[in-house]
Amino acid sequence: MRLSELSEHSGVSTATIKFYLREGLLPPGRRISATQAEYGEHHLRRLRLVRALIQIGKVPVATAREVLSHVDDDSLGRTIRLGAALWALPQGNPPAEDLEDPEVAAATAELEELLTRLGWSNAQQIGALSPVYRSLAAGLATLRRLGFPGDLETLLPYARAMHELAERDLDALEALDSEAEQVETAVGSAVLFEPLLLSLRRLAQEEESARRYGY
Amino acid sequence: MRLSELSEHSGVSTATIKFYLREGLLPPGRRISATQAEYGEHHLRRLRLVRALIQIGKVPVATAREVLSHVDDDSLGRTIRLGAALWALPQGNPPAEDLEDPEVAAATAELEELLTRLGWSNAQQIGALSPVYRSLAAGLATLRRLGFPGDLETLLPYARAMHELAERDLDALEALDSEAEQVETAVGSAVLFEPLLLSLRRLAQEEESARRYGY
Repeated sequence: MRLSELSEHSGVSTATIKFYLREGLLPPGRRISATQAEYGEHHLRRLRLVRALIQIGKVPVATAREVLSHVDDDSLGRTIRLGAALWALPQGNPPAEDLEDPEVAAATAELEELLTRLGWSNAQQIGALSPVYRSLAAGLATLRRLGFPGDLETLLPYARAMHELAERDLDALEALDSEAEQVETAVGSAVLFEPLLLSLRRLAQEEESARRYGY
Repeated sequence: MRLSELSEHSGVSTATIKFYLREGLLPPGRRISATQAEYGEHHLRRLRLVRALIQIGKVPVATAREVLSHVDDDSLGRTIRLGAALWALPQGNPPAEDLEDPEVAAATAELEELLTRLGWSNAQQIGALSPVYRSLAAGLATLRRLGFPGDLETLLPYARAMHELAERDLDALEALDSEAEQVETAVGSAVLFEPLLLSLRRLAQEEESARRYGY
């Protein structure tokens, strides 16, 4: 399809598509004349992901470019490819940088105990290589420093629930045709689904509070 | 305790404490001389919450003031008081404003079906009055518009898990002494715990991906 058709099918203006092309967020189309190029299904799919990152996730352009470079790197194993793409996304808590900091070290020890009790041996093996792991350590250190509750007994059922849901998420991804599509969908879902999950949590709390205490 | 002791016990500099006092985020101490005031346990607790909101949650000062005004309003019922405080917090998805917008209306219809299947009749009754509800509708509309997966069958187990966890959360809150402390802790936990939960989700996905596909 031509640029104008790509715009029509995606609902993204041609000016915005040209901006994404210029910034390297969208691969160029197949050139068919000096002034025209042909775009395909994968452009439509990529456009969907770019919008999720930039327009919804407010991810900076340079970060989005990094995320996409991992999404496109089919030399990586699936876990590393998906991991690298997700790792490049902004985290709620900036990953802890100084693991020697006493507060972070104490939080890391707690996190290790949590992972042992969960039986998440792969996460333990990846360990501090993963920004997700270091982000958890940072968040846990903050929780402890400010003295808010949230001991391991509180975290365990949350972690177990997240693992059950991760099994479902990966089952759903496996139903998609190609590994490229799976990785793209996983990244887009991370951006779009995470705020939904937090809203569901707050709504569940409202529901439960109203059941217990009325309005 | 004096200002200097409040600073020592909380780990917050006196300059920052004075800023919070000036901005009305921390109630004044009991004046004991022309230049000195006495602070109590509730100042320590409030300081903890203010730091969670401002330093960690990056909530704007005016928003934090609004959240705290609800936290302090003991004329409200517990659900409304907690709700109003949480409602004033920023949401991942800005709440939908125009419920007549066809995409939002379609998402709201889906949300209603989800709540019916969940049996969350209180959440249905509060409905669009709740910014959490409108934020969910907005997020769902975005998911649909961009064409990412996430049908009701996907959302249901997430919502059910969040409700089970909300029951535990409220049980834990009920162990705290006063309603004021419960509401303060609920708001602080919302700010500090939500990013932890998302990190746990991403870590669970890494773990599950490594189990299935290796690295």
